[in-house]
Amino acid sequence: MAGPEQDPGGVVALARALIRCPSVTPDDGCGINALAAVLEGIGFSVTLLPFGEGTARTPNLFARLGTGQPHLCFAGHTDVVPVGDAAWTHDPFGGEIHDGILFGRGACDMKGGIAAFVAAVRLYLQKTPRPRGTISLLITGDEEGPATNGTVRVLEWMQANGQIPDFCLVGEPTNPGEMGEVVKIGRRGSLNARITVQGMQGHVAYPHRADNPIHRLLALLGELTAAPLDTGSEWFEPSSLQVTSLDVGNTANNVIPARAQARLNIRFNDLHTGADLAGWIRTVVARHAPRADVSIAISGESFLTSPDAPVEALRRAVHAVTGHVPKLDTGGGTSDARFISRYCPVAEFGLVGASMHKVDEHVALADLKQLTAIYSGFLEKVMG
Amino acid sequence: MAGPEQDPGGVVALARALIRCPSVTPDDGCGINALAAVLEGIGFSVTLLPFGEGTARTPNLFARLGTGQPHLCFAGHTDVVPVGDAAWTHDPFGGEIHDGILFGRGACDMKGGIAAFVAAVRLYLQKTPRPRGTISLLITGDEEGPATNGTVRVLEWMQANGQIPDFCLVGEPTNPGEMGEVVKIGRRGSLNARITVQGMQGHVAYPHRADNPIHRLLALLGELTAAPLDTGSEWFEPSSLQVTSLDVGNTANNVIPARAQARLNIRFNDLHTGADLAGWIRTVVARHAPRADVSIAISGESFLTSPDAPVEALRRAVHAVTGHVPKLDTGGGTSDARFISRYCPVAEFGLVGASMHKVDEHVALADLKQLTAIYSGFLEKVMG
Repeated sequence: MAGPEQDPGGVVALARALIRCPSVTPDDGCGINALAAVLEGIGFSVTLLPFGEGTARTPNLFARLGTGQPHLCFAGHTDVVPVGDAAWTHDPFGGEIHDGILFGRGACDMKGGIAAFVAAVRLYLQKTPRPRGTISLLITGDEEGPATNGTVRVLEWMQANGQIPDFCLVGEPTNPGEMGEVVKIGRRGSLNARITVQGMQGHVAYPHRADNPIHRLLALLGELTAAPLDTGSEWFEPSSLQVTSLDVGNTANNVIPARAQARLNIRFNDLHTGADLAGWIRTVVARHAPRADVSIAISGESFLTSPDAPVEALRRAVHAVTGHVPKLDTGGGTSDARFISRYCPVAEFGLVGASMHKVDEHVALADLKQLTAIYSGFLEKVMG
Repeated sequence: MAGPEQDPGGVVALARALIRCPSVTPDDGCGINALAAVLEGIGFSVTLLPFGEGTARTPNLFARLGTGQPHLCFAGHTDVVPVGDAAWTHDPFGGEIHDGILFGRGACDMKGGIAAFVAAVRLYLQKTPRPRGTISLLITGDEEGPATNGTVRVLEWMQANGQIPDFCLVGEPTNPGEMGEVVKIGRRGSLNARITVQGMQGHVAYPHRADNPIHRLLALLGELTAAPLDTGSEWFEPSSLQVTSLDVGNTANNVIPARAQARLNIRFNDLHTGADLAGWIRTVVARHAPRADVSIAISGESFLTSPDAPVEALRRAVHAVTGHVPKLDTGGGTSDARFISRYCPVAEFGLVGASMHKVDEHVALADLKQLTAIYSGFLEKVMG
């Protein structure tokens, strides 16, 4: 193992150790257990929280150090997406380092992020052996999978056990190209709709004796997609509606079909709620196809965390280490932050995500060390 | 067998005999051969014209009586559609008569029509034993199937052998409810198009990095269906465009698919040609989706036969027998008349089609006798 100046807080060693656990969702036992052992060694009280039954059983942990205020929680996941079909240049579970780059599945998403936080805690405790506040970790083994028995269930347990923090930092990779670019302080909401229009089958030569459900579907989708939902808000980019499928399956050229279906997804900002959008969809559909069946699932509302403290402290910590003032952003897909936002303010900052979910996922050792320094600086600013 | 006053020209007996041939497409040997024997008995020269190979071999016949002018041809088919899954009240191939109704597959579409024409020829020859003109029949055993080796091939043979008539009468059922309602003097054209839009797959959260082919397809279909193609013409109802299928098949809510396909059919009147419509479709598609693949098949152009003589003679014959002045119409689906119209003027008049292709297909004996009288009157007016 390298000395402290080569490996501050042991971030590189821990990242390599975690990568060597082949913890592809849902088989993440080794990742969670390896991390639990490390945290206990530092002084954390670790509670293993497996939820679900049989093959759907998800390993999770909650670890806590201290009892005072403020309570800062770090959230993340040790599971990783599959290696994929393409060949890797380096063993995806080998933890190999070449020319200052650590390769492996989870290197940036997000075993590297977890390792940086644990290393930052070690560095912080060296300076502040008896912190007045509380540091905790919420780690799941199912963020990349259905996420049913992961962060959602741990948060319920934390609520029931008086463990809700004052602020939560999610260590997902947030930087598109280099360290220090982006802190995420919110996410858009997401809604899925399936619209099934019933018509009346008939011969194309006699359309007046039939009721073409496709023409009704085209009319309602035309209205739903006619104009942008909004032009964005202070912290959010414009909401976006995408029709993701159209399905009729009629191969007879001379037949007007009885049924036509469309699926769509809306990623929406804080100018909308899922319920408002669902109501709008139902109103438009009813105008063009009163007999249509509309099924809507809201998989997450939008959320926004105030850019004041402690987000400002995080931003200053990033600037101090990287020289960049990170952009406060709310773009992109969803993450477990959408669940956490229901309980406490949450922001996200981690590594560079360019290689996540790809072949030869990797992280620069320099980035791991920068992230360790950023997390350590953030702890000092927030915990005092 | 009933006497002449009960069965003028033997129409009922011949209709029953033909129904007793289970000549479901493509197995129509017995229908064509039975008819050939009857025609030879009256004095026709019959040429059997089987076209195609193996199981695609289609029986057809051309029968001719006389050599002079004018040459009137009757066109029809002895094949029938399948019985279907539902139970019949009467044997579909039994030729049963109950309460003045003859039941059986092909009763109105169109063995009854053929029997009426043959009976009309018999009645006409009784009055005019040596007609100055020519009477012919073009009969196929594949009108209800792919029609590849049927009427189209017989017409080519007739052309090559100098047998193109001056006028052709198709005996398809044209009357919706009762005898004498409709003479068809044209048909709309039909065009099928398949439009495949290529986009670029991506994540719904990042639509600016993808190219949603569904939105391009919705835009072009919106333009194609925005306004009626026309408001109809002197003899035609308005053209009609029907989108018959939409196919994407994407089940992932968070994915913008790479490809979307639509199928559509246009039934068009004499204000358009298939080529004009194909050009319009390609122009609209190119405006919204330059990389789309467009496949167009024109299955028939529209055609119109002058409502003057001999259509006027047919109309007067219908009026003389039924008391109705039939409407001259061009609506409905396609028939073999679209092929014949390329060679000579063609009109259609036959039985009441309400039960065609259905369970318990039937024809009233009174209608068979009226049609025989109409065809006989038409022969007298046209042939002199």
